[in-house]
Amino acid sequence: MISDQKSVHSSDDLEPVAGNGLLHRRVFLTGGIGLAAIALTEPASAEPLPIESWMKVPGAGFDGYGKPSKYEEKLARTWNTAPGTTGTGAARTPLHLLDGMITPNGIHFERSHSGIPDINPDTHRLLIHGLVKRSLIFTLEDLERYPRESRIAFLECGGNGQLLYQKEPVAAGVQAIHGLASCAEWTGVKLSVVLQEAGVDPKAKWILAEGADAAGMSRSIPLAKAMDDALIALYQNGERVRPSNGYPMRLLLPGYEGNMNVKWLRRIKLTEGPTMTKDETSKYTVTLPDGKSLQFVLPQEGKSVITRPSPGLTLKQSGLYEISGLAWSGYGKITQVEVSADGGKSWAKAALQSPVLSKALTRFRIPWRWNGGPAVLKSRATDETGYVQPTRDKLIAMRGSRAIYHCNAITTWAVSEKGEVKHVYA
Amino acid sequence: MISDQKSVHSSDDLEPVAGNGLLHRRVFLTGGIGLAAIALTEPASAEPLPIESWMKVPGAGFDGYGKPSKYEEKLARTWNTAPGTTGTGAARTPLHLLDGMITPNGIHFERSHSGIPDINPDTHRLLIHGLVKRSLIFTLEDLERYPRESRIAFLECGGNGQLLYQKEPVAAGVQAIHGLASCAEWTGVKLSVVLQEAGVDPKAKWILAEGADAAGMSRSIPLAKAMDDALIALYQNGERVRPSNGYPMRLLLPGYEGNMNVKWLRRIKLTEGPTMTKDETSKYTVTLPDGKSLQFVLPQEGKSVITRPSPGLTLKQSGLYEISGLAWSGYGKITQVEVSADGGKSWAKAALQSPVLSKALTRFRIPWRWNGGPAVLKSRATDETGYVQPTRDKLIAMRGSRAIYHCNAITTWAVSEKGEVKHVYA
Repeated sequence: MISDQKSVHSSDDLEPVAGNGLLHRRVFLTGGIGLAAIALTEPASAEPLPIESWMKVPGAGFDGYGKPSKYEEKLARTWNTAPGTTGTGAARTPLHLLDGMITPNGIHFERSHSGIPDINPDTHRLLIHGLVKRSLIFTLEDLERYPRESRIAFLECGGNGQLLYQKEPVAAGVQAIHGLASCAEWTGVKLSVVLQEAGVDPKAKWILAEGADAAGMSRSIPLAKAMDDALIALYQNGERVRPSNGYPMRLLLPGYEGNMNVKWLRRIKLTEGPTMTKDETSKYTVTLPDGKSLQFVLPQEGKSVITRPSPGLTLKQSGLYEISGLAWSGYGKITQVEVSADGGKSWAKAALQSPVLSKALTRFRIPWRWNGGPAVLKSRATDETGYVQPTRDKLIAMRGSRAIYHCNAITTWAVSEKGEVKHVYA
Repeated sequence: MISDQKSVHSSDDLEPVAGNGLLHRRVFLTGGIGLAAIALTEPASAEPLPIESWMKVPGAGFDGYGKPSKYEEKLARTWNTAPGTTGTGAARTPLHLLDGMITPNGIHFERSHSGIPDINPDTHRLLIHGLVKRSLIFTLEDLERYPRESRIAFLECGGNGQLLYQKEPVAAGVQAIHGLASCAEWTGVKLSVVLQEAGVDPKAKWILAEGADAAGMSRSIPLAKAMDDALIALYQNGERVRPSNGYPMRLLLPGYEGNMNVKWLRRIKLTEGPTMTKDETSKYTVTLPDGKSLQFVLPQEGKSVITRPSPGLTLKQSGLYEISGLAWSGYGKITQVEVSADGGKSWAKAALQSPVLSKALTRFRIPWRWNGGPAVLKSRATDETGYVQPTRDKLIAMRGSRAIYHCNAITTWAVSEKGEVKHVYA
């Protein structure tokens, strides 16, 4: 068969498709990049490879629940906490060190309003009450008998990306700026099934969801969302939901801002209107230039960010690279990601890694020949509703300088002649 | 909107679709199971839920790389090792405790022939040689500049399920019998890209892949597979491949038997024929009744197993349950899983969790009303090539009693009147 193997791309594929070295994504799809394009490898001598020390002794034994390599110490969340607390704050995913779309459970982002409660699953209860025909209390064991559903979904804190609202570009990278976004396969019971079991009063139009943390974190959610694709999630990437992500059960509202996906879920009350809790009045609103605030801005809008190269990942020599990143939208599927290497003067379409799933992180990739000179990298996502990720200027023009939440502006990385990557506004 | 909400299933949905209580999968797809079908819940009193101890104090703080809840101690691999060794053997995934299709990295199965080598990624090298235009040596940093691809794929040890070849049914459950199968999102560089870079000699028809473990585990692979969908995997579920799964790089041959997906990959040699290594002559062959062995049985054939209920998961009362399990095929997508509750007399189609991906674990589910009497549960997978998972009798008739590998026979669980689940041949 290999005798039929031909060079699978034409030389045209290596012609730029946008300014400053962006190449056609077909170079990847067709599986060949060609001798002329990249030559990173050193010629082998006639000698075989040396026998390394780890080949001379039996290796380590088995482990019930394993860990990453000791050489991957950087693979960790970073966090900040409110003064005087240890567990009130947010821990960020090192997206710049990851590839693919799944976030391992150990580094899924977390936002806690009073630390991670130490919940005993045997005594934990979920109460359904309010405008229902009959109140119900579920044990975990009860819920386990209900039919389940799985879906891969992103979660993003409503405050993710807020550093882009600052007047001057912060000297930070993907983890600090956008690390409050992650993606996992969630499995659980459809909330609609449980609500139907309780019998929904026709007057009910909203629900209140409350967590079993010391903060009693709670949010109001339109009933329509609860009856649509909401899940009481019991499993995260196959195993039980992690304590930091709501063990033993959390709400999953695909596409909606993070804290509405209430962790440590203990109570759902059906109501006529929103409850106006502290977590949706003093926080998680979008303040406009005139001082008024938008309340209940629920889905996370279409967004993308280049994760590689990005600050901290230095290019060591000119030549061919892959530009890669993540895109997502709370409104559905990502349909297009464009990348620019010349600060937005010209754009080229990136390849999207299949399967592209609704309300999940989507990996994009595009080949790039770095000529060793300055470059300004941007990515721009479009979702299936036609929504296009805005520039920072455009978003600031709409929102002014007092906003904190829902910052989905285009992020810009500048590559210097030394190959160092820096966050800039450009 | 909820005022328009109606009971979303007709009473027909709760009529059995196969013997001994199997219900139509539509019960799930339409999202309602109805008051009459299941009443596990206790009525709530007028009082709110009690304030549990964990709501009265701030919870735990943040952690760089998190762990499962302390209440999930059972979530661990179990293993056996060859006499006198600590790292030669196999560790099994607790599939009965998982849901969804992803296996968390900490409990992905592993099979090691001389333990897990402690590889320094900075000094690790990958050599491409043999029938190539020029030999090449890659550092990890070299490989990182190549274009990447992600795919969700199952891995299964060729020896998984071999307990079903035993004359009497072993008193064991899913983990012991089928736990050498897992599924992850793998990201890496297409092997074809690297081989094209080296320049494939038309005489080459096979490759030899060798690991950097002390066993020098090595296998021969048809070049056609190497040029098709083979990946040099660098990432597993988003993060770097785990040491137990080949850090810093492993081969991924979607659908092919586990040990061909060589871990700790250090060398690929292009050859005219298979190399006949110890790992494909003394082992990993399928011995037939006449004493001859089939060599190079490469893809894992279509298979399924019910994970819930299964041994160790006892049904505490009669009523509605979900029967759930996993199906997979090394030939492509799963197209159908049938379930029987009466020992194979009648079968009903289970619902398949989307997205159904080629050569990935596929979750199936079907509602079941257990009447409290004896039941005999089986599942049977069909893949897109039309291949149907065989009964144990049929497989034994073909293979005799001397076979060890590639046991994909239907597994049977018997449910007693006490709700206990047992492995049986029936």
